[in-house]
Amino acid sequence: MSGEVLRIGVAGLGTVGGGVLKIVTENREKLATRAGRAIEITAVSARDRNKDRGVDVSTMRWFDDPVALARDPDLDVVVEVIGGPDGPAKATADAALGRGAHFITANKAMMAQYGPQLAAMAEDRGAALRMEAAVAGGIPAIKALVEGLAANSLHRIYGVLNGTCNFILTEMERTGRSYSETLAEAQERGYAEADSTADVGGFDTAQKLCILASLAFGTMCDYDGVSIEGIERIEAMDIQFARDLGYRVKLIGVAKTTDNGVTQWVSPCLTPANSVIGGLESVTNAVVFDGDFIGQTAYVGPGAGTGPTASAIVADIIDIARGNHRPCFGVSASQLAPMRRVSLDALPARYYIRLSVNDQPGALARIAGCLGDDGVSIDQMRQHGRRPEPATVLIVTHEAPDGAVRATLEAISRLDVCLAEPVALRIESA
Amino acid sequence: MSGEVLRIGVAGLGTVGGGVLKIVTENREKLATRAGRAIEITAVSARDRNKDRGVDVSTMRWFDDPVALARDPDLDVVVEVIGGPDGPAKATADAALGRGAHFITANKAMMAQYGPQLAAMAEDRGAALRMEAAVAGGIPAIKALVEGLAANSLHRIYGVLNGTCNFILTEMERTGRSYSETLAEAQERGYAEADSTADVGGFDTAQKLCILASLAFGTMCDYDGVSIEGIERIEAMDIQFARDLGYRVKLIGVAKTTDNGVTQWVSPCLTPANSVIGGLESVTNAVVFDGDFIGQTAYVGPGAGTGPTASAIVADIIDIARGNHRPCFGVSASQLAPMRRVSLDALPARYYIRLSVNDQPGALARIAGCLGDDGVSIDQMRQHGRRPEPATVLIVTHEAPDGAVRATLEAISRLDVCLAEPVALRIESA
Repeated sequence: MSGEVLRIGVAGLGTVGGGVLKIVTENREKLATRAGRAIEITAVSARDRNKDRGVDVSTMRWFDDPVALARDPDLDVVVEVIGGPDGPAKATADAALGRGAHFITANKAMMAQYGPQLAAMAEDRGAALRMEAAVAGGIPAIKALVEGLAANSLHRIYGVLNGTCNFILTEMERTGRSYSETLAEAQERGYAEADSTADVGGFDTAQKLCILASLAFGTMCDYDGVSIEGIERIEAMDIQFARDLGYRVKLIGVAKTTDNGVTQWVSPCLTPANSVIGGLESVTNAVVFDGDFIGQTAYVGPGAGTGPTASAIVADIIDIARGNHRPCFGVSASQLAPMRRVSLDALPARYYIRLSVNDQPGALARIAGCLGDDGVSIDQMRQHGRRPEPATVLIVTHEAPDGAVRATLEAISRLDVCLAEPVALRIESA
Repeated sequence: MSGEVLRIGVAGLGTVGGGVLKIVTENREKLATRAGRAIEITAVSARDRNKDRGVDVSTMRWFDDPVALARDPDLDVVVEVIGGPDGPAKATADAALGRGAHFITANKAMMAQYGPQLAAMAEDRGAALRMEAAVAGGIPAIKALVEGLAANSLHRIYGVLNGTCNFILTEMERTGRSYSETLAEAQERGYAEADSTADVGGFDTAQKLCILASLAFGTMCDYDGVSIEGIERIEAMDIQFARDLGYRVKLIGVAKTTDNGVTQWVSPCLTPANSVIGGLESVTNAVVFDGDFIGQTAYVGPGAGTGPTASAIVADIIDIARGNHRPCFGVSASQLAPMRRVSLDALPARYYIRLSVNDQPGALARIAGCLGDDGVSIDQMRQHGRRPEPATVLIVTHEAPDGAVRATLEAISRLDVCLAEPVALRIESA
């Protein structure tokens, strides 16, 4: 062993906190060999001291208050797994970094909101701030981006960052069942919370995306600049039609940079079925990074769960033990540029459009006319169904600006032959 | 800038060396921001000073001899992109590490053979030794394994580590053409060397695999312990039959650990078509790591090429500039255990078997008898073809030891109804 014992305090003893304790206590010798010094959890904090968590905490000092734990000068590293953007989590971060302790968090909400501010505090005090577990769970995506691809300028990052949504979408595809039935199943199986808004509404993905975008482009986190659409309106038939066209429907977060700035959005998109993202099943996550020298690399793995999340936190601990203290956002917090937003409206894409149409002579011509008026040209068009049933018309467009597509959908929905609100999904190339 | 200029010498100015110069000189400011200090290439070495390499080397000191460059006390880091296990590359490594300079190499052959020895030299002198570019090109696979997954015990690593072989196999599938025709095309397109033995014979994959296995299991590199089979005998019809069964044929390197030791092998295998490895097209590489806490993660990207390889080398430079000096093999070289070899013979797997059979009464029964005699049970059996043509019999076995399958193939090939040497390919689960 080359160095002194690294003393860790863990604030929060939910499943992830318990997982960290389990890894560190059960693999003491292995971790010491890898880190070059012993790693010990010497203090913990949680609300209820008497709850059985399946790990022995009797040798660790107990704090009822995580802020008191964070202030303990005997701790080299404070791990925060409390959660929430503000409140005790933020107070713990402030207390730990304020006294120059290293700080590790799995808290995407807090890092999306206060990341650069906390990074500045860490740098001022010479402390390390790490957040590998905050994005894509066990996949070392942040490490890959900030360290592995550090030679590159990134021009696009995108990924499936929410396992709940991917489970629901792949399950809808497999069973042909509706969104609401599948959500209920996901809730029963523990893949979705009782209040699923953060997941299915795309907000969880947006938090992770804005952290990745900040890392990729060297800008401040700009959660408010993310255009967000969830999966609530996806219908089983769209998943099936997409499949027929060679695509799968995925909730993806995308950040693209151009000379004018960065566009960030979360929405259900069609992705090529034979791509890494298109191939994802169940709760698996993946991120894809497009860089100038490296081209494209993709990272696939579990985006949540006790083992993977704890694995990411312990990797951060080992990094700190080894003395890898690079800046949290890859560059000094003072050098993060403001995010210049570019609206999604201006960003061209191909679109999948589904229309429910009264199958009368001239209907298709009038629809095609609307597309032509807005300069949206058609790549493929298919009609399903027979009279007297309404016909389903599927259109795949060539590349067109988001704004033009919205305008044309508006016009189409006003046609009397159009029997229901048109459905439109972006197609994101692999 | 928090630190002094990091002065780099590059030994070898082929395409990769030129790529490193290009990235570092064209992105001076960006790299300095990320590394926290300026990075400058101040010396280069190559055989021919007068060759035009498309980069201006006039401001850099020139060395005809890479060993003289490595000995230059003004250089903080020596980058070796000469290649070859011995000779000038090894002499350069010895000279650089011998005086305590940081050393970065893309040299898989040298690291497979001398990696632990060089790592020990680096640690004795307090120098960093890095080799990200030696395995899987631009994919930060080594960083993911040694740092990102450092909390885990790995039990299997496997991957497609040679782009040439994957190009040939996917092109054979796409066109239905033979191995030799496709190899010739790959050579024309620059995806295969004139002497392609190292690639198609599996030796390049084996070098990369034994480095990954060493990193994953904390053992010495054991290239001689890798069981190696190339793709030269793969026929287009096997690729097609595999596809029909839901698999694709990939040349994969696998290392598995059990209580008794480690089994390492390179061979063409059937992998599920809907897996990350099964989905790889053209020259793309991927590695998959199975760990105890994290479960499975996969890493996909370009395994070769100037940009990706140079990107990996510059990432190593930035890591060193940031002060990330963790041991090359993840643990101190003195703690690398000897590799305990477990023969592939003992390792059970499912097999794809193709037989060319004289379609006479009782033929199938006699084949099935051979399988039964060796305890190899049948999962699927299909017969193609009509008399008087020989029939093609496809068998997918349940899990059986490699040794038992070899014995049964031996017995089948001696049957008079068997018209050609049986073909057998392992099936590697995702």
